[in-house]
Amino acid sequence: MTYSDDVIGRARVASDATLDEFYEVLKGVNAGALWTVANDIEPWFPQPKTVPALWKYRDLRPLVEQALGLVKADDAGRRVIMLVNPGKQDGSAVVGNVYTGLQIMGPGESMTAHRHMAAALRFVHEGKGAWTVVDGQKLTVGPGDFAITPSGAFHEHGNESDDTNVIWQDGLDIPLVNAMDAGFYQVHPKLYQDVDPVPNHSYLKYGVGQLRPYGFEDSWSKRYSPLFAYPWEQVYDALHNVAKASPGSECDGYILEYSNPLTGGSVMPTLSAHMQMLLPGQATKAHRHTGSVVYTVAQGSGYSVIAGKRYDWTKGDIFCVPSWAWHEHVNLDPNEEAFLFSFNDFPVMRSLDFWREEIMRDNDGHQEISE
Amino acid sequence: MTYSDDVIGRARVASDATLDEFYEVLKGVNAGALWTVANDIEPWFPQPKTVPALWKYRDLRPLVEQALGLVKADDAGRRVIMLVNPGKQDGSAVVGNVYTGLQIMGPGESMTAHRHMAAALRFVHEGKGAWTVVDGQKLTVGPGDFAITPSGAFHEHGNESDDTNVIWQDGLDIPLVNAMDAGFYQVHPKLYQDVDPVPNHSYLKYGVGQLRPYGFEDSWSKRYSPLFAYPWEQVYDALHNVAKASPGSECDGYILEYSNPLTGGSVMPTLSAHMQMLLPGQATKAHRHTGSVVYTVAQGSGYSVIAGKRYDWTKGDIFCVPSWAWHEHVNLDPNEEAFLFSFNDFPVMRSLDFWREEIMRDNDGHQEISE
Amino acid sequence: MTYSDDVIGRARVASDATLDEFYEVLKGVNAGALWTVANDIEPWFPQPKTVPALWKYRDLRPLVEQALGLVKADDAGRRVIMLVNPGKQDGSAVVGNVYTGLQIMGPGESMTAHRHMAAALRFVHEGKGAWTVVDGQKLTVGPGDFAITPSGAFHEHGNESDDTNVIWQDGLDIPLVNAMDAGFYQVHPKLYQDVDPVPNHSYLKYGVGQLRPYGFEDSWSKRYSPLFAYPWEQVYDALHNVAKASPGSECDGYILEYSNPLTGGSVMPTLSAHMQMLLPGQATKAHRHTGSVVYTVAQGSGYSVIAGKRYDWTKGDIFCVPSWAWHEHVNLDPNEEAFLFSFNDFPVMRSLDFWREEIMRDNDGHQEISE
Amino acid sequence: MTYSDDVIGRARVASDATLDEFYEVLKGVNAGALWTVANDIEPWFPQPKTVPALWKYRDLRPLVEQALGLVKADDAGRRVIMLVNPGKQDGSAVVGNVYTGLQIMGPGESMTAHRHMAAALRFVHEGKGAWTVVDGQKLTVGPGDFAITPSGAFHEHGNESDDTNVIWQDGLDIPLVNAMDAGFYQVHPKLYQDVDPVPNHSYLKYGVGQLRPYGFEDSWSKRYSPLFAYPWEQVYDALHNVAKASPGSECDGYILEYSNPLTGGSVMPTLSAHMQMLLPGQATKAHRHTGSVVYTVAQGSGYSVIAGKRYDWTKGDIFCVPSWAWHEHVNLDPNEEAFLFSFNDFPVMRSLDFWREEIMRDNDGHQEISE
Repeated sequence: MTYSDDVIGRARVASDATLDEFYEVLKGVNAGALWTVANDIEPWFPQPKTVPALWKYRDLRPLVEQALGLVKADDAGRRVIMLVNPGKQDGSAVVGNVYTGLQIMGPGESMTAHRHMAAALRFVHEGKGAWTVVDGQKLTVGPGDFAITPSGAFHEHGNESDDTNVIWQDGLDIPLVNAMDAGFYQVHPKLYQDVDPVPNHSYLKYGVGQLRPYGFEDSWSKRYSPLFAYPWEQVYDALHNVAKASPGSECDGYILEYSNPLTGGSVMPTLSAHMQMLLPGQATKAHRHTGSVVYTVAQGSGYSVIAGKRYDWTKGDIFCVPSWAWHEHVNLDPNEEAFLFSFNDFPVMRSLDFWREEIMRDNDGHQEISE
Repeated sequence: MTYSDDVIGRARVASDATLDEFYEVLKGVNAGALWTVANDIEPWFPQPKTVPALWKYRDLRPLVEQALGLVKADDAGRRVIMLVNPGKQDGSAVVGNVYTGLQIMGPGESMTAHRHMAAALRFVHEGKGAWTVVDGQKLTVGPGDFAITPSGAFHEHGNESDDTNVIWQDGLDIPLVNAMDAGFYQVHPKLYQDVDPVPNHSYLKYGVGQLRPYGFEDSWSKRYSPLFAYPWEQVYDALHNVAKASPGSECDGYILEYSNPLTGGSVMPTLSAHMQMLLPGQATKAHRHTGSVVYTVAQGSGYSVIAGKRYDWTKGDIFCVPSWAWHEHVNLDPNEEAFLFSFNDFPVMRSLDFWREEIMRDNDGHQEISE
Repeated sequence: MTYSDDVIGRARVASDATLDEFYEVLKGVNAGALWTVANDIEPWFPQPKTVPALWKYRDLRPLVEQALGLVKADDAGRRVIMLVNPGKQDGSAVVGNVYTGLQIMGPGESMTAHRHMAAALRFVHEGKGAWTVVDGQKLTVGPGDFAITPSGAFHEHGNESDDTNVIWQDGLDIPLVNAMDAGFYQVHPKLYQDVDPVPNHSYLKYGVGQLRPYGFEDSWSKRYSPLFAYPWEQVYDALHNVAKASPGSECDGYILEYSNPLTGGSVMPTLSAHMQMLLPGQATKAHRHTGSVVYTVAQGSGYSVIAGKRYDWTKGDIFCVPSWAWHEHVNLDPNEEAFLFSFNDFPVMRSLDFWREEIMRDNDGHQEISE
Repeated sequence: MTYSDDVIGRARVASDATLDEFYEVLKGVNAGALWTVANDIEPWFPQPKTVPALWKYRDLRPLVEQALGLVKADDAGRRVIMLVNPGKQDGSAVVGNVYTGLQIMGPGESMTAHRHMAAALRFVHEGKGAWTVVDGQKLTVGPGDFAITPSGAFHEHGNESDDTNVIWQDGLDIPLVNAMDAGFYQVHPKLYQDVDPVPNHSYLKYGVGQLRPYGFEDSWSKRYSPLFAYPWEQVYDALHNVAKASPGSECDGYILEYSNPLTGGSVMPTLSAHMQMLLPGQATKAHRHTGSVVYTVAQGSGYSVIAGKRYDWTKGDIFCVPSWAWHEHVNLDPNEEAFLFSFNDFPVMRSLDFWREEIMRDNDGHQEISE
């Protein structure tokens, strides 16, 4: 299919002196002629400014460690190296309307509490002793663990180990919040929250989603999950169980969505997250969809083909897939499984009825790789 | 508060010859005078026909075993001894609109498949080797396990052990289905279902409710849980976790509801089930609510006070609480926890907006025990 | 298709002395053998106790007027002649789990306020000056108007005309409430409600359902419609509009459901109501479904075929269709439309997932009429 | 309250040579230091780029008419003069993420059909004979009428009058669709749709929202309203009825939301619309909220105070209120009501849980007017 704009149904007005003059007049009254921009603002298919990209953890890690010596966490607010999409310098987006960065905390370090409209999630790369207090609940998290910091929830972080740094990845919807003109921010009035004596209590209550504390849900009216922490061991076992019972997804292998046990929906209204397992040597089929995705390699090594280009990855690497870009994944290890953690703005696509998906049927479902 | 019918706002028409004659005429045209029955059909509060009752497992067990020798399972349809509420002989209700019975299957026994509008659940009392095929999925269940057989799902049962009997408890909404004039029944056209090669596959897929197979839920449009089996070990651990994080419920101790992981709701639209744990020596406060409950003692011994009367129970015993009857529970063991499995028609009460609950505030929340 | 119980998959245990003795023992411990009742409590298809029936308004009207002289409204609670299904004398059901009756109020008469768990609806047969105060809102209603009195809402009635009686039809879910052991009743503590100065204010606010008072719905958490009155003129016009734009329903002609403008659902969680228009000479196709229906002829004359029997009707007549009974309608007037008001328990069938429907395809969709 | 960034909890890292060098290194690997932008991307409260503005119809009208002679509708795609917010030249937004423009069609003119992901709505300013075919349904619309063209619905427009131009206002979520990288566009394969013979049939079916064509809704799975047209007369009458029954809203006077009769929700998932009536001389209280609003004066004259500045308006004028800007309205006419049509992205704010609102309590609820 071709997408020529020189067809009836598209704007095809040739410019001339009279029109140019008219456009100037319009400009003078804060107006414009739709036909001069119509084809641009109503494209045939999505035209994201952000592009596919991959960041090697081995490049980022030393820089993150360097930051540890350069700034104090509380001076920085948070000591985070953010990933900036090569296609779009402004707005602090790694892709589409999502933000991600690597945060480092030294031994014994801790920070003050704040909250904001932006929703946040955490995925731990390395280090023992990481903790975060979210809405008064202390969560202790280790490598591979996933945790959320919902919109409007006060939160503060720290590292209670004696000798090891913690590096975790933050994922937020900051660009979305700003695109929607909805940003609010507040420092905790007492700088630190009162903390519930039982760490991870939401996991103790909701750690088996289909066994619900009776009556509790009645009092839960918030739009996000009452469960804040999802440990790696549980998702690892769950993926192996799913693999015994199901063929998985042709485009994603075995993939689980971290869900709100009270609704079965995404953990937060603007961000969702997945963990997927690729069997040794597995190569998935290509698909494309609206919505943007940030992938982090939790384990293993392989490559993904995004918009026709190959991106090789290994543990800790981060890569992104913009809206409507074809993508497929390959686990190059003949013996070990590969695990990809990812987060996305699919809940937004679904809420606004913008979700579209297409699975590649030609060429046995695989893209031609350019270069 | 007194409930006299001799007040304005209640029907207070004294009968006389003229009226009696009038009533006869009405009868002749299939009519009646509302005021002759108004106070009965619009009572001050619920007037269940079914009453509180307790069945000792030690009484029922030998009878159930006797049945094994008396009838063939396939001649009986199912070899079940049902519990009949002493207050209501007709309709096969153990309490309110719920049915329960004890089903026994000998070694190597199996039965043909059928389905019906009535929703069923199973709770295993004893024996190894029990299995049920529900909607083509083989479930293997042992003591303390909970499983569902939703409305309209074909099912067949068996016992694959060589030497031990299986006794499990059936819970169904048969009286509800009949009260609603909605009963349908079908024998499986081939007598036996085609069985999925992977046993318990729904547990493998949904065994951690907050980790959802991605995309699967999109294709699940049924009104009941896609997860059919809930093993005892998991609920046992979950209850101990909840106990670390929460004070539990003043009327129920630590209690979990078996839920549909895709909705957070009850496992089926007409029946829900709970497992609750009472700490050593724990005595709960009394409450009453609409909806009927059947309790089965999964472990431990103690007593419950229902409508002012004490009912002592130990493992395997079954007792019921009718709508709006005060009830409270006591674990008499000073060292061991007690576990009560229960199922109820609360989903119906909530769907129809009939749910009402009251917690006893007088007398420190405890009933006076009569006799 | 035949429905023999003498097949594998049904209970087929022949009785004998040993078994009879066993059954006696079971009875002694409040138990029974499922197989002795299984085929009855799990029927092949619904077996309602209530049967199709029709009541002629010309028979009922004089009796209702006679009641006016026989009892005082406040002595009777309400002066109502209820319709009793010929197939089931107890329980005050006209069909299935619904109740209906004709209530008469003389000029200037008024009654005290009460409320109950049962949900009520009104359809006015004749008379000017009828009013009801529901939850503090005064509704003035005339012939053909439909109004609701939701569960738990205080209500009182009256007739403010000088010279004419009012006869309206009550529809309630009393048998359902009692079958669910959920009945509560309360006389208004002050006997009369405080009344909002603006009559029919819910109609003024919500009289055009798709134009919603902004912000109001946020504060409306009740399970029933905020709109209490649905005037005849509006439904009459709406039906004629639908007839211009749609072929209507092959089984119901042109039919509208009175809906909750805030949810699009039924007006109350247990009862819904419809008004349908049959074109001159129109004959609908037969269908059957779970759920029970009470029909009232709002206008015109014709007949309905229910379970193979013809029931002729004219204005004011009331007839009922039990669950799963085939039914079809014919407007005998060659020039005038016929209008059937009806109410039902479909919301219950849908909430409990008991809804089933079948359209007759044989014999061009029409039943054979017996006798 | 002050909003200084020089406090603990905000980023307060002073730059120096070492850091600048570090930032350069980060830039080289498509990364950045969060603390260099943190205060900007997580503002204390929303910082919209778009600003309050007002467009006089008397200025725009002649330009729109001029366009009629300058370009052919089908060359332009649509002959529309769009409003461009003075604070943001790119992206074609009138405010926030919404677009609006004035479209003119000459007598007898008509255009080809297309569809796009963007959702559209129409509000007619002047002219008889306007029509639009949406998803095969012909809608005829006149001054004051509101109509929708949902996302993905094919649509084509025309003016069937002999002698008068039509000018209507388009409202779309184009900037939102592009911000979400979700834009798709398609020209109708046959250039023109097959048209249903009954114009406005959705209004004939759903013109009284609380009277629903029975069974129809079951087959309606779309996320937008099945009712496409909302005539002025109906909303005019409804507003007068509401005024009799309710005090209205302290910030909006009497205001109705055009709703989906099947859900009670907004007409489309991304855009909602209101019509509000201000009584003669009425002055509303100020409030602010997230979400952007475009107002069009349907009738009357007065002014609004937005972010402390007064904007005088009369019939046809268009003005906008960005997210979180205080605003209040005044009807200057002592005898006539004023009517403001408005549309907004509130559904997006609610879906994403970004909705926040504050009512001004100081100064009797009114802003100080600068200049």
